[in-house]
Amino acid sequence: MSGPFITLTTDFAEDFFAGVIRGVIARINGDARVVDLTHAVSPGDLRAGAFALLAGCRWFPRGTVHVVVVDPGVGSGRKILCASTDDYCFIAPDNGILSWALTREKNVTIYSVEERRFFLEPVSATFHARDIFAPAAAHLTLGVRPEALGPALTRDRIVWIDFPEPVTGDKGELRGEVLYIDRFGNCITNLPAARVAELDPATLRIETGSLRLAGLRRSYADEPEGTALALVGSAGFLEIATSMGSVAERFRLEVGDPVTLSVARD
Amino acid sequence: MSGPFITLTTDFAEDFFAGVIRGVIARINGDARVVDLTHAVSPGDLRAGAFALLAGCRWFPRGTVHVVVVDPGVGSGRKILCASTDDYCFIAPDNGILSWALTREKNVTIYSVEERRFFLEPVSATFHARDIFAPAAAHLTLGVRPEALGPALTRDRIVWIDFPEPVTGDKGELRGEVLYIDRFGNCITNLPAARVAELDPATLRIETGSLRLAGLRRSYADEPEGTALALVGSAGFLEIATSMGSVAERFRLEVGDPVTLSVARD
Amino acid sequence: MSGPFITLTTDFAEDFFAGVIRGVIARINGDARVVDLTHAVSPGDLRAGAFALLAGCRWFPRGTVHVVVVDPGVGSGRKILCASTDDYCFIAPDNGILSWALTREKNVTIYSVEERRFFLEPVSATFHARDIFAPAAAHLTLGVRPEALGPALTRDRIVWIDFPEPVTGDKGELRGEVLYIDRFGNCITNLPAARVAELDPATLRIETGSLRLAGLRRSYADEPEGTALALVGSAGFLEIATSMGSVAERFRLEVGDPVTLSVARD
Repeated sequence: MSGPFITLTTDFAEDFFAGVIRGVIARINGDARVVDLTHAVSPGDLRAGAFALLAGCRWFPRGTVHVVVVDPGVGSGRKILCASTDDYCFIAPDNGILSWALTREKNVTIYSVEERRFFLEPVSATFHARDIFAPAAAHLTLGVRPEALGPALTRDRIVWIDFPEPVTGDKGELRGEVLYIDRFGNCITNLPAARVAELDPATLRIETGSLRLAGLRRSYADEPEGTALALVGSAGFLEIATSMGSVAERFRLEVGDPVTLSVARD
Repeated sequence: MSGPFITLTTDFAEDFFAGVIRGVIARINGDARVVDLTHAVSPGDLRAGAFALLAGCRWFPRGTVHVVVVDPGVGSGRKILCASTDDYCFIAPDNGILSWALTREKNVTIYSVEERRFFLEPVSATFHARDIFAPAAAHLTLGVRPEALGPALTRDRIVWIDFPEPVTGDKGELRGEVLYIDRFGNCITNLPAARVAELDPATLRIETGSLRLAGLRRSYADEPEGTALALVGSAGFLEIATSMGSVAERFRLEVGDPVTLSVARD
Repeated sequence: MSGPFITLTTDFAEDFFAGVIRGVIARINGDARVVDLTHAVSPGDLRAGAFALLAGCRWFPRGTVHVVVVDPGVGSGRKILCASTDDYCFIAPDNGILSWALTREKNVTIYSVEERRFFLEPVSATFHARDIFAPAAAHLTLGVRPEALGPALTRDRIVWIDFPEPVTGDKGELRGEVLYIDRFGNCITNLPAARVAELDPATLRIETGSLRLAGLRRSYADEPEGTALALVGSAGFLEIATSMGSVAERFRLEVGDPVTLSVARD
């Protein structure tokens, strides 16, 4: 029988910290199955971590515990959260990194992780992932209830990072931005598939930086190698990409760059 | 009891895509054991992926499902293959990436993965690894037969990448090339150990770029630090290397560079 | 029921070598749970590997087998060691990489791994991790006793790397060095928490390169973003860091740079 799953989303890259977390979990629940969601978040990049979690968490089985460690405020007064939803538990610092993933979850209850009997002792001031997050997650997979970790918090008591919703401009155009640049240099925007679907694909115009794109493609291979294109990507957002090569590098696109979606009138 | 193994060979690097694949597999078969073969293939580099699979796949237990995702043609008309052999199943795009590994497998039967009941719904046009490859692999580990995934294909119906066989030159020399550069900068060539073994090691001459090497060494430490050397590497091919340091960087060697193996006549 | 754990500490980065090791282990003991401690050690960097192992190994369950592969001497005459302690077994080349971790272990017995019946055949000269280390570790998790792997070695028969103990200078100052630079650019020194604790935090002065720091902080967030600070880190050593950003990059600190800890007299 398979054990319960714990995922890790961190900015640890390949350093030994993620290994230590796996050791701590193994000591508390040797049956827990630890899976890396990603360790490639840039140090302290809360939006990149929030997006990876939004795009990735929902593919895991019900009951999975998602541990998120992008935590520049470790050891300061910031709280540590356990967010319990219909499908998952999330353990993360109270810095907003859960915000985007939680918008898609149902029946969210948030607890402040404070019960020291679930921590390692002594608790360091610089590696709460090892001393608090990992043991709390491991105990959850052993059947400890989220409410046992500490008191419930109302939503106004925790930090939220607003999802950068696209806005409609004067001429009816949709104004968004680059949200995440993936390993291939594809630029994932905040323009959701549902909004794009309202428009006629043939007359769509997409602008960002020096790029002017007409129409939507379906897959990366729909244009010759190196030609920029726009499509609806696998996370459900408009994506600017190119077949074979990094569109971000080639056209110097960065996270936060404005992207405009409009309809040709002529 | 251990579950069945699934390996991943991709060009995803550290991004969250491999994590998502693990989640999808876990939802279908929580007992499957997912192992990273490598995620370090350069984007779209079919030959590097083919080599990693050739060198790596046969070390896994019988019954392992090898999932290969170097797939620049995702969402285009390219087929998705399930290659069933005496020892393994392979799931990969029909772009030739399985070619080199399959030459060492016995009783190869190839199927076109088409049965949508084994896919996630809806199927995205840009992430078939998540929506088709991973669920197909997970179902195989649950006992679904390869032939249930879709119709058999004859060998002439799929894409093959020829292994760059070394050729014998006018003067009896063996002409090959650099096939793969590993993490240490070692240059693995396409000159197989068996061909090298036919020659007297003491009189061997190896040339590539500005490098002229005489004789074979047994291990990296057989020369002082930083001195280039040639040896038969662990994947069974002639390898150009150096003890401590990257021979590729130092002598500006690249994949595809010609390598000549000859015998000193004087 | 959870299987026994095997950790991997290597300089393989993301190449396929670690995947191959996992395959070899799976073939011998499909129940073994293989965990990456780190693969990010720079090629051949024995001190970085020794530190990662020192900081990481003790968080794993009793009975874990730690496999360490930073092995520039592979295939030469160097021995292969199995160090058995009260809590763990370690498999590593005899190049000193176990030295720092073993100082914290109790009842250390060291064996020379020589019994070929536990190796893969044929044994390559360049990938002992695949042909010797991995199968030896897998056999240990199956219940093979360390002494079955080969003859015991006295401590004077193996290579040790001295831990660079800090020294006390003429004016009572403590002279140490940068031991490890982590993924965030934090500089972990060899100055142990216990020695730092003997001094009054308020009057502490820390010097390295062009940096002059006064007093200890508790966490990275105790200074504004980008301001250098010193604290006792999670591995139990004095650490020079900064909130958000790499102190190593900003102040050009490198492993081996001297760090002086003194007490203000005025």
